[in-house]
This record gives sequence, C-alpha cells and structure tokens, in this order.
Amino acid sequence: MTEFTQPISVSSLTPRLLLGPGPSPVSPRVLEALAHPTIGHLDPLFLALMDDVNRRLRDVFGTQNQLTFPVSGTGSAGMQAAFSNLLEPGDTAIIGVHGFFGFRMAEMARRLGADVVEVEADWGKVLDPAQLIEAHRAHPHSRLLSVVHAETSTGAHQPLEELGAYLRESDTLFVVDAVTSLGGLPVEVDRVGVDVCYSGTQKCLGAPPGLAPITFSAEAVRRVSSRKMPVTNWYLDVTLLSTYMGAERRYHHTAPSNLFFALHEALCEVEEEGLQARHDRHRHIGQLLQSALTSRGFNSFTESSCRLPQLTVVSLPGGKEEAPLRALLLERFGIEVGGGIGPAEGKVWRIGMMGHGARESSVERLLEAVHALGVGEG
Amino acid sequence: MTEFTQPISVSSLTPRLLLGPGPSPVSPRVLEALAHPTIGHLDPLFLALMDDVNRRLRDVFGTQNQLTFPVSGTGSAGMQAAFSNLLEPGDTAIIGVHGFFGFRMAEMARRLGADVVEVEADWGKVLDPAQLIEAHRAHPHSRLLSVVHAETSTGAHQPLEELGAYLRESDTLFVVDAVTSLGGLPVEVDRVGVDVCYSGTQKCLGAPPGLAPITFSAEAVRRVSSRKMPVTNWYLDVTLLSTYMGAERRYHHTAPSNLFFALHEALCEVEEEGLQARHDRHRHIGQLLQSALTSRGFNSFTESSCRLPQLTVVSLPGGKEEAPLRALLLERFGIEVGGGIGPAEGKVWRIGMMGHGARESSVERLLEAVHALGVGEG
Repeated sequence: MTEFTQPISVSSLTPRLLLGPGPSPVSPRVLEALAHPTIGHLDPLFLALMDDVNRRLRDVFGTQNQLTFPVSGTGSAGMQAAFSNLLEPGDTAIIGVHGFFGFRMAEMARRLGADVVEVEADWGKVLDPAQLIEAHRAHPHSRLLSVVHAETSTGAHQPLEELGAYLRESDTLFVVDAVTSLGGLPVEVDRVGVDVCYSGTQKCLGAPPGLAPITFSAEAVRRVSSRKMPVTNWYLDVTLLSTYMGAERRYHHTAPSNLFFALHEALCEVEEEGLQARHDRHRHIGQLLQSALTSRGFNSFTESSCRLPQLTVVSLPGGKEEAPLRALLLERFGIEVGGGIGPAEGKVWRIGMMGHGARESSVERLLEAVHALGVGEG
Repeated sequence: MTEFTQPISVSSLTPRLLLGPGPSPVSPRVLEALAHPTIGHLDPLFLALMDDVNRRLRDVFGTQNQLTFPVSGTGSAGMQAAFSNLLEPGDTAIIGVHGFFGFRMAEMARRLGADVVEVEADWGKVLDPAQLIEAHRAHPHSRLLSVVHAETSTGAHQPLEELGAYLRESDTLFVVDAVTSLGGLPVEVDRVGVDVCYSGTQKCLGAPPGLAPITFSAEAVRRVSSRKMPVTNWYLDVTLLSTYMGAERRYHHTAPSNLFFALHEALCEVEEEGLQARHDRHRHIGQLLQSALTSRGFNSFTESSCRLPQLTVVSLPGGKEEAPLRALLLERFGIEVGGGIGPAEGKVWRIGMMGHGARESSVERLLEAVHALGVGEG
C-alpha cells in the first residue's frame, strides 16, 4: 500500500478572482484561443499570426520599431533580454530604484558586469527626474538609464516625459520597464523617446503569463550590433531572434504557439475596446476602488500624487495583520490579492484591477468580502 | 480607406497533423487543461500543483534529484539554464557535436567564456564514447562533458551508459540534452549517472511548447553554489529559482500557470499509459514508419544502427526536391513534417512520431498523402 495523498487534478482547481499584482483574470475568449490546437513555429499560418501579434504590439507600445515582439518567457525574461543585449562588462548603467523591480534591474545589470549607478527614492514615491539627470551629467557616457514605469511593489507611477526629452540629446539609451503599465496606462514609446521597453502579458494586456513583449529602437539595435562581445545569453540574443522574426524565418527556438494564440486574441480585445478607452477604464476603476478603500479606513502606501490606477497598495485599517486576512479572502471568497514584497512584506495588500479584471463587479466583490471579514468601516 | 488585408484570427487557423520535429500534437484533454482559468503563481493550489509536476518529472527523468522543475521557457531555455549555471569564464567544457544541437551547446558554452573542446562525429552518426573519454583524459579538470541524447537535426540516438559510468569516477559533470528523448526513450538520469538533464514539453511528453523540464544532481547543485561569480543570467539562476520551488516559496518570476496545467495533465497521461508502455509505443510506431518509408524508396539520413524511433530523418526517393513537396503536404493534406537544418538543409524530411502523435493513424495518413503526391513506390 502506498501512502494516501490527495490526488491533484487541474480540472478540480478552484477558480479565483485574480485581483493581485498579476496574473490578472483571463477572459473566456482568450482562454479559448489559448486552447486552439497547437501549430508549428515555422508554419506559414503561425508566422503570419506572429507578424500580426508584433504589429499589434507596436500599436500598444506606440512605436514604429521594427524589432518589437514577445520574448518566450515571463516579464522578468523581458527585463533580462533588455539588459543582456544592451550591457557589456564595464558599461555604466544608471538605474532608478524606487521599489523591488528597480532593485532587480540593478541586480541584473551588476551580474552582467556593468558599473551600476543607483538613483534612489523611497518606496511608495517616484524618482525625481532632476536627480536622474544629475546622475547622467556625472556619467554622460552611460550605456543606459532605466526606470520602472509602474512599480508593481509600491503602486507608484513614474513619469517618463522629462527623462525621455533629456536623453534624446545623449548617446545613452532610455530603458523603461512597462510590465504593469502596458495596456493600462499610455506608454507611447516613440513620442516619449524610449529606446527599449518591455512588458508582460499577464497584467493589463489580459493574456496568460509566459510572454514578455519587448521593443528595441533603431538606436538600441545599432548598440547591440556594435557590441565587442557576443551576448552571453544565447536564448535571449535579439540579433538571433530577429533572424526568426524577420524575413529570414530562421529557426531559433520553438515559439510557444499557444501563448501566441492567447496574446493575439487579447490584443484583438485591446483593439476592439480602443487603447484610449482601455486606459480610461483602468483609471475609472482604479479611482473607484481607491476612494472606496479610503472611505473604509485603508491607508495608501503610495504617495497620493503618484498612485497607479491599476495597482493599489494599501495598509489595512486599524493596524490589522494582513497575511491571515489575505489567506481568508482567498479561501472563503476565492479572491486573490497580493501581499507586500521587500520592505513592504507583511505590511500591505497589493490590489490589481487589471485587464479583464478591471471592472466594477471586481470592486464590488472585493468590498463585499472585505466587509464580511470585518476589515474597516462602512 | 485603409488598405485591405486579410484579417487573421486564431479560431480560423487550420488544424494540422504535427509530424515534424516538434511541437507534437497535443491531446484534447491536455488542451482543455491548458485553458483552465489562470491562477496565481503563489496560490497554495498552484504551489501544490507545481510540486506534483516536479514529482512527476522526477519519475519521467528517473531521478531522485530534489532540484527538478520546468524552466519557464522553451527547450533551448533548458539548455541555456544548464550551461549558464554550470559554467564560468575559463572553465573547460567537452562537448559532443554530431548535429545542430551539439553545435548550439558549444556556441552557448563559448559565449559564457568557457574553453570548449569539441568532439565531433559526422551528422547522422553518434559519438564514439572512447573519443569523448580520450578528450576527458586530456582535460581531466573539465567542468562538464555534454552530449545530445536524441539529435533532433539528424535522428541519431546517442548511447549514454559508458560515458555515465566513466564520468562517475571524475569531478566532471555529465550534461545530457534530452529535449527529443524524454517520454519517448528511457533517460534514467540516476541509473546512468547524469548530473544535469533538460528537455522540452512539446516533443514526446505531449504538452504544448513553452516549458523546459530540467534536473540537477546534488553534485551539480554543489558546483553552482561554489561558483566564484554569480550567474550572469538572473532569469535562469537555479539558486534563485530553487527559493521559489522550495520551502521558502519566495517570489522569483510569474510562473506561466496555464502551461503548468497542460504539463501536469500530459504527465498524468504519461503515468496512466506507463513509461515503459510509452517507450514501447514510440519504438513500435517508429519502426512501422521507418520500414514503410524504406519500402517506398526513402533513404535514411541516419546511420541504421542509431536511428531514433520518434524522429525519422530521410531523403526523398529519386532525388526529388524536398521543400516543394513538404509545402504541398502541409497545404493539401494539413500534415507538417520538418525540413533539414544546417548541412542537411534542403536534403531531408524530419518526421516526428512523438507523444500523442505516435500512433498508427499518423503513419497511415502520412503514407496516404505521400502516395497521393506521387513520392516513392508502393
């Protein structure tokens, strides 16, 4: 006799309402596309679909960049692709750190042998562009300057315009992490002057996790092609990847076709809704949630002037411990919200209203559950 | 008026019978699991499912290795994870090259700064273990020695036993690429003495592409933890990944939960069929196909003593050009087979009978189509 263990099956997994920092809920239509029978990565039908995904991503990124595609990995693989391709040992990288993901960028850059100049702001605030510009004046030959547009650890919305305008006049590449912003906030790569921008599919784009949309400007591509050493990361080498994405159609790796199906369908949903309307929806629902939580005594972790609509980071009313209540929210009500990470661990809830989940019914279900758990007034 | 372009939609993609070198056909049951509503990567339900996936992978790999899990990327990300974690600049790597994927391993190792000792065999043949052992005697302090178990470019089946037995007595790690073998042929990591073995989900395991199962022996883990420098590839750093997979459950990246659902279901199918029965099925169907093709005048590209059952590489009868007929096979009959890569480009078909596709009806449909196209006798 073997030991009795509860058998685990996918079909018996309880559905959840995903209101954490991602993944966000995936619409039935996108799930259906995900399950379309697999086709090959070199099938002409797949290549046409991939081209269409890339075209749609250009629209969402607000760019004409030819080299725009989904990396075959999650959002962090997008970050890795940006840094692995742009940096060589000895390069200087100026990195804005106002949360967990800025810290991660700095860590990746250091591992690649870069001299990292960190410009910091307190968690929950945004970086002062003047400080980043000052750092650049001290290190004018920096290879890149990077910031996180929507800090998923703190809920802070970093402005990009001033940095983009300043860096246009320099040889330094502007790298933007848009993992939690793309599809929920305007990113506008070309207008702002971003050189490399990456995201994830599982946040405001409304697709399942597993792909990381990325875009490289012509300037960034020139930088990659003038490297002294090949990219140590073969899997994410964009020069190799572009021979698959481009006219050559040269085999590089087996693209995860089903994830492309889902992303394509999610991007069709974005187009049908309209990008502006989608941004408006995220803003509207975020404001609705934030004012409701405030009236119930939740406190914003994020400085009020820079709160993201799609990701709300709050501490609980009355100094209540977050983890046990978060576990109850999941077990009793099937609602996932995120806990804090880094210095915010144990202190906050991170509540996402992203993609298909950014709707009034999500706010209502969450507020009802919070009420039933006896958290806060009202 | 905008220019008229054919709209592309996932639901209108023609189904294909996938008889190329991968992806292989995915069963309806696995596709259904794939489309189960997404859940979070830190949800206790997901963590339990992930543990169960890892346990099932240990069974298929034939290992007790604790560090056994799917990398969040395709098969090549598995290769990248093996080499990025094991190698540091200046390490020596002995690499067996008898096809495209051996060449790729050597390329990855060089990019990581290793001194690569290539031991070659002609495409279509296997490596003589004696030659690899000789290379090791010349470089006894090599960090690793790696071979491709099932060369997807040539259809050759590399024996592992002698190498495994020899390397047990050394400090050199034995790395095996099992992308096309796992689930179709016995791999038996622990019995053979393999230290790091990686695969892909989209071949003989019968899941969609996007994950790369990998396993590290305790010896390999010790090597990683005694590195002088951190792994330059943060995304694939197994030390970080093991804090997510292990008891700490520390967030590293957003695991692609839907791909895990599909892999779990595919591994349930493997268990229900039985690993031995699954290997037998692949062998039986491969032999059926190969003898039928031989009787129709196809010529094996692979030396007869080392043909893989699950991947058959053949040139066409009568010196017929392969590419136009392969395109017709896809367009008219909806059957995908692969073309050659590297020196075999334009010379061969690569026909996979893998996973859910390894069945008599696949052989019959292919033979009927080949007959209708007027290729070969019979």
